[in-house]
Amino acid sequence: MTTEELWKKYKEKQFIISAYELLLNTTYYDSDTIAPVKGRDYRNERMAYIGGEVFDMQTDPEYIALREELAAREDLDETSREILKWELKDLESFRYIPKDVYVAYNELTMKANVVWKEAKNRNDYKLFEPYLLKIIEMRKDMLQYRHSDLQGYDIYLSDYEPGMTTEKYDQFFDLIREKLVPLIKKISAAPQIDTAFTNLHYPADQQRKLMYRILDYMKFDLEAGVLGETEHPFTSAMSKNDVRVTTHYYEDNILSSIFSVIHEAGHATYNYQIRDDLADTYVFDNISSGMHESQSRLMENYLGRNMAFWDNLYPEAVKLFPEQLKNVDQEAFVKAANASVCSLIRTEADELTYPLHILVRYEIEKGIFNGTVDVNNLEQIWNDKYEEYLGVRPQKASEGILQDVHWSGGSFGYFPTYALGSGYAAQFMAAMRKDIDVEACMHNNEFQTIKDWLKEHIHQYGGLYLPQKQIEIATGEPFDPNYYVDYLTEKYSKLYGIQE
Amino acid sequence: MTTEELWKKYKEKQFIISAYELLLNTTYYDSDTIAPVKGRDYRNERMAYIGGEVFDMQTDPEYIALREELAAREDLDETSREILKWELKDLESFRYIPKDVYVAYNELTMKANVVWKEAKNRNDYKLFEPYLLKIIEMRKDMLQYRHSDLQGYDIYLSDYEPGMTTEKYDQFFDLIREKLVPLIKKISAAPQIDTAFTNLHYPADQQRKLMYRILDYMKFDLEAGVLGETEHPFTSAMSKNDVRVTTHYYEDNILSSIFSVIHEAGHATYNYQIRDDLADTYVFDNISSGMHESQSRLMENYLGRNMAFWDNLYPEAVKLFPEQLKNVDQEAFVKAANASVCSLIRTEADELTYPLHILVRYEIEKGIFNGTVDVNNLEQIWNDKYEEYLGVRPQKASEGILQDVHWSGGSFGYFPTYALGSGYAAQFMAAMRKDIDVEACMHNNEFQTIKDWLKEHIHQYGGLYLPQKQIEIATGEPFDPNYYVDYLTEKYSKLYGIQE
Repeated sequence: MTTEELWKKYKEKQFIISAYELLLNTTYYDSDTIAPVKGRDYRNERMAYIGGEVFDMQTDPEYIALREELAAREDLDETSREILKWELKDLESFRYIPKDVYVAYNELTMKANVVWKEAKNRNDYKLFEPYLLKIIEMRKDMLQYRHSDLQGYDIYLSDYEPGMTTEKYDQFFDLIREKLVPLIKKISAAPQIDTAFTNLHYPADQQRKLMYRILDYMKFDLEAGVLGETEHPFTSAMSKNDVRVTTHYYEDNILSSIFSVIHEAGHATYNYQIRDDLADTYVFDNISSGMHESQSRLMENYLGRNMAFWDNLYPEAVKLFPEQLKNVDQEAFVKAANASVCSLIRTEADELTYPLHILVRYEIEKGIFNGTVDVNNLEQIWNDKYEEYLGVRPQKASEGILQDVHWSGGSFGYFPTYALGSGYAAQFMAAMRKDIDVEACMHNNEFQTIKDWLKEHIHQYGGLYLPQKQIEIATGEPFDPNYYVDYLTEKYSKLYGIQE
Repeated sequence: MTTEELWKKYKEKQFIISAYELLLNTTYYDSDTIAPVKGRDYRNERMAYIGGEVFDMQTDPEYIALREELAAREDLDETSREILKWELKDLESFRYIPKDVYVAYNELTMKANVVWKEAKNRNDYKLFEPYLLKIIEMRKDMLQYRHSDLQGYDIYLSDYEPGMTTEKYDQFFDLIREKLVPLIKKISAAPQIDTAFTNLHYPADQQRKLMYRILDYMKFDLEAGVLGETEHPFTSAMSKNDVRVTTHYYEDNILSSIFSVIHEAGHATYNYQIRDDLADTYVFDNISSGMHESQSRLMENYLGRNMAFWDNLYPEAVKLFPEQLKNVDQEAFVKAANASVCSLIRTEADELTYPLHILVRYEIEKGIFNGTVDVNNLEQIWNDKYEEYLGVRPQKASEGILQDVHWSGGSFGYFPTYALGSGYAAQFMAAMRKDIDVEACMHNNEFQTIKDWLKEHIHQYGGLYLPQKQIEIATGEPFDPNYYVDYLTEKYSKLYGIQE
């Protein structure tokens, strides 16, 4: 077959799979946002079936051979070959797993998820422990079905962030441990920022209105997106012109929904701004976790918690909450949004202490896979590490080892990308600042200029490049975590009046 | 193969098709309620593909043969054979259509729908006319691919309401024409009911709250359903425990959303109350249009517009709209909800004039198929009939022949079921009143008792029986349209003080 004929067959198959995936994603979204609870079993059985159909299509030997042949054709353009390379690489993560192992693993994680929820509610780690140990055992065992140049934990790290290894993460986290732990200790001892007003009563209806103002300010296109409501905020990219974000309204916390929305809008903008010719390809939504997180953190922390972001928005917030914000000026509001407090819950952590929460998880995961951590003692190890790095010790499992869903789903290697993404973001911001006056853009209600920069240097490519290469394209240099640590040190030293 | 083995194969295939249909239905719902407009093309292309997959599975000769064989097995229980009979009957409506004709027809109606919308906006029937004429031609032509004992229009009438024919509809509509047209003329000349307060400003947020009160009063299970918002209200039955209704809020009309919600809740309750052993079968949502409409009309008109329905709810409405309902007592409110006015728009018509709107459409459709209507003169025929039966003449096409979407989708034979359903409902109500005190149930906040009656006599069976048989099961006698005409005559004569 000619390359053109092969390509046509590939695009046909890809269209079919994209049809299944769109309907599955829409049903997932529906399920998470509005679907009634009593319909869950009926729905889940059918979603599982269609998910299996997609798995079968993806791993169909004929379709794999087609893609392998295409990827080797030298008369195919480079971009298309690059995309095929990614598809085949990602396929490697599951294609050699025997079907019975795959099914058993899915059943285990589905059950584990239910038990995790119950254990969290009951604050009983022992209830969940046997499932976690079994998942760890299976994840280790399943490494044998990988045809990778890497070994052990590095394989899973690379699944979420291609190119990253234990060695590289160690360097990153060593720097964080060395520089941030002492800074955080100093800040804990310094006079604290007043945040009491952020926990007054903020009715959900009014919060909802503020979120639409924020999205409008961020030039989020509501004809190509949706703002939904879920227990846990997320972004769901159905297609280039249908990228959805969700948030959760806590009536005793005005900051939570604000920064969730800005964060998710960051994710969504990445998908929305992909180049048209890449929009219907594999790299549209297959972007490394670290890169995706860099864009959400950039919007949330580097822009959203910036004073200038609120120049146009804060008067709107005051109009919506005249009583609650009566004696709070914009500066006090932004200060509160940046307050740093050592706490137990990762998802509620501030920008400065956040990477320490990740450090705890990274060290435990690494130890699980290299055998230096006693898997029968995980809860205590967790608590000890929190005490060591953050100076706080969980008193119950729901605030400790049971707080995150990830391990119940077998996601080892994912957590580190959360901190890494924040790290990437610092370097992107430094590059952006060379080209545009970020604060002036925000002050002048020209958020699109910022988005245009991100589009030109990052978003347009989707997941086309290795993160390392993407960073060089956008910033002209390899990833350097010093941007991140220096930014945090400078910002927080100033905010809390600490001598560097 | 044994019957048991055949049955197992059938259930497996049915499960697979139900998985596709659930995801398609969910995506339709999503598309109608919240999906962003710019994602439409991407979404529609993929929904069309998956729809085609379902068509191929349904018409797969092997699967048809399997069902035919099963339906002939005498050792299969009667209910299962009945269900198979329905599946095969419905299959007959499209299985013999050549694929190219089927595709051409779908393309035509998709295009016609777009043109219809534009023509309606522009009030230009001539723009839509060529499409309508082509659709009529194709619908006539496609009759050759039917293997039915019926002929012409009767085939389409029977698709929507098995057992109904022109002859039977003629009897029904003759009675309506004869009895209701003179009554409506008298009412038009009588003193009118004050409805001005229903068109004050009713904020959508407050209306939304009232709708949840109404659903709560109707014991609508919000753990097995959803209330959404769409341009045109509809009900979507995903599964027995996931039945969704939608409404539309007009801020200058409080009655519109109220009776939409009650109407759709009537549809939803039918699906929700099906017997468990029928819930995952073909008859769960394949219920004749007339029967389904009987349940929505019963709730909307026979219960919702009943004084007692409001005994518990009206004080709630006044609390939500203290200004708007300041000088309106419950009786005045219910009277306004029952006011009859000859108007041009079917969907806004009151209970009494509604069947006349249907009569106009029925006579035109019948004439189109039996050749007694000049298809090149449809707009004038439409206008003349409105003038004759309702005493009002459309001044623009959007209020006349272009008001309904149905014909642009080729739905001939559907309209008559709207009136028929109201007719069935009158007979069901008469039977119900023999067993329970309907007003007392509503007054005492025991709506469930009414729903239990409907479940026992109608809902539990889903679409298992021919409408005629279902009516006999529920009421002990064949369908008698006099219940309907007598009910309307008595109710409206009394309401407007007219001597019968």
